[in-house]
Amino acid sequence: MMFGTRVASRVRQAGTPLVVGLDPSWEHLPTGLRPAGNGRDLAVVAEAVETFCCGIVDVVADLVPAVKPQAAFFEALGIDGWQVMHRVMEYAQSRGLLVILDAKRGDIGSTAQAYASAYLSRMDGRVVADALTVNPYLGADTLRPFLAMAQQAGGGVFVLVKTSNPGSGQLQDLLVEGSPVYRRVAEMVEALSCEYGLSSGFGLAGAVVGATYPDQLAELRQVMPHCWFLVPGLGAQGGTAHDVAAAFLPDGTGAFVNSSRAIMYAYSYEAYAQRYPSHEWQRAVEDAVRDTISQLRTETTAGHL
Amino acid sequence: MMFGTRVASRVRQAGTPLVVGLDPSWEHLPTGLRPAGNGRDLAVVAEAVETFCCGIVDVVADLVPAVKPQAAFFEALGIDGWQVMHRVMEYAQSRGLLVILDAKRGDIGSTAQAYASAYLSRMDGRVVADALTVNPYLGADTLRPFLAMAQQAGGGVFVLVKTSNPGSGQLQDLLVEGSPVYRRVAEMVEALSCEYGLSSGFGLAGAVVGATYPDQLAELRQVMPHCWFLVPGLGAQGGTAHDVAAAFLPDGTGAFVNSSRAIMYAYSYEAYAQRYPSHEWQRAVEDAVRDTISQLRTETTAGHL
Repeated sequence: MMFGTRVASRVRQAGTPLVVGLDPSWEHLPTGLRPAGNGRDLAVVAEAVETFCCGIVDVVADLVPAVKPQAAFFEALGIDGWQVMHRVMEYAQSRGLLVILDAKRGDIGSTAQAYASAYLSRMDGRVVADALTVNPYLGADTLRPFLAMAQQAGGGVFVLVKTSNPGSGQLQDLLVEGSPVYRRVAEMVEALSCEYGLSSGFGLAGAVVGATYPDQLAELRQVMPHCWFLVPGLGAQGGTAHDVAAAFLPDGTGAFVNSSRAIMYAYSYEAYAQRYPSHEWQRAVEDAVRDTISQLRTETTAGHL
Repeated sequence: MMFGTRVASRVRQAGTPLVVGLDPSWEHLPTGLRPAGNGRDLAVVAEAVETFCCGIVDVVADLVPAVKPQAAFFEALGIDGWQVMHRVMEYAQSRGLLVILDAKRGDIGSTAQAYASAYLSRMDGRVVADALTVNPYLGADTLRPFLAMAQQAGGGVFVLVKTSNPGSGQLQDLLVEGSPVYRRVAEMVEALSCEYGLSSGFGLAGAVVGATYPDQLAELRQVMPHCWFLVPGLGAQGGTAHDVAAAFLPDGTGAFVNSSRAIMYAYSYEAYAQRYPSHEWQRAVEDAVRDTISQLRTETTAGHL
């Protein structure tokens, strides 16, 4: 099944476009899980991170269509973190979740191909992630090896277009003949998406567009009608369900909305901390997921899913 | 010792700016090292890759200042490749080489910090690489966590400015008020380099500028007087020693020039294959290194080192 159809049907099945990000760091683990010490025994931290991430997967598997592990947080834990990342991805897939690996890779020629093979279709025949985030700065020729590999594997690629950080405009908003750089990138991604084949109206090249820039989100929805969006920045970064409304098509498809810290660390937010003691962190995660889903239903067309 | 001084003195000591890239792939390994089969047993391939890369380090340790492992080729080999990458970096450092990890990472806020801690100064106190390549598309705010960590660790960061691939112009050459995007990035990198502190005239933010664009190389040398350059694209990608001349200052410092495949796989190039049988691949590597060093001495100010 091609990527467009896979994501659209998975989102319809879950009834929500919410993706839960997995950005595990030692200092934020729930008290009962956080190993003593200063977090410098990486093997011990990695073990706790695995328990934590798999515990989140257990909570969200029946509620959302996908999880988005953030590679950096696992890589920071060295070899043990690397192993845990792969085991968490495998576990999430075994629970029926799509896995979007947020690794923001990008390189030229045979190197891009090596990254694609690392994450989208490994030489030993294993598919590691269902989709991978990639960086467009090096040009479309460097995205093609990722797209070709995704096509083979039934996976997808999300290209950074307009990122959610405060300084994303420094380069992305520069005007080229009156049109911002991010728009040029968007046109490139839309063309690639169509070129590599559509299914259920979407190509396998998607776009990362931050929830923190709602005007650009609306503009980019017009520029990339055939791209599935991955919208980070909801929650801890300040984006609201209302802000992401423009990412969706009238039928509620067309976008994933990601929330990481506001869900993973819900137990440390006052609203949930009042309800649940620290060892019941999974119940806080579940409530946060349900609350976010409900906000997305009220504020966006996701209510039509 | 700060990064600027470290690289300048290491280059003077070696007497050449040549960096040897490590881009190991199964199908290019010398006959005697290449495992039988189709390369799908990744543990076996990873073992061969380790022997090969350490064998290259043995040859080049007394000849060049640094090696540049390309993370993608190790990541493509799964967990075993990841372990081998770390062991090869450690071995190269133990032989006195600087290690520039070519991983082209880039992300926002705490995620950028996690990447920086993964490669520049790990939580368990280990320094993994001496420098890391990073991608500027997300803006200067996302480069700062890398620079801060590099500063702490005495390491450096090489920011992609103008890459060596054929399609690099698609985004990097777009004109913003008459000035290409890569030039805007260069101005940003120069400012960051000065901000984080100079030593021996160079900051810890360097720039990646491809050998395949000699005119831009000359232009960018003017725009970034305080940035050490990392110039890929020599050899297999078509750049010549003459093409990279503009990257250097009159005293021969200011740039690393990287060659990967033309050195690693020298034994498969006719000139060397005629001289050495396959099992003497290390002698071919050594000749290729010496030939490239000599070309750089003749064609550039590196002769003054």
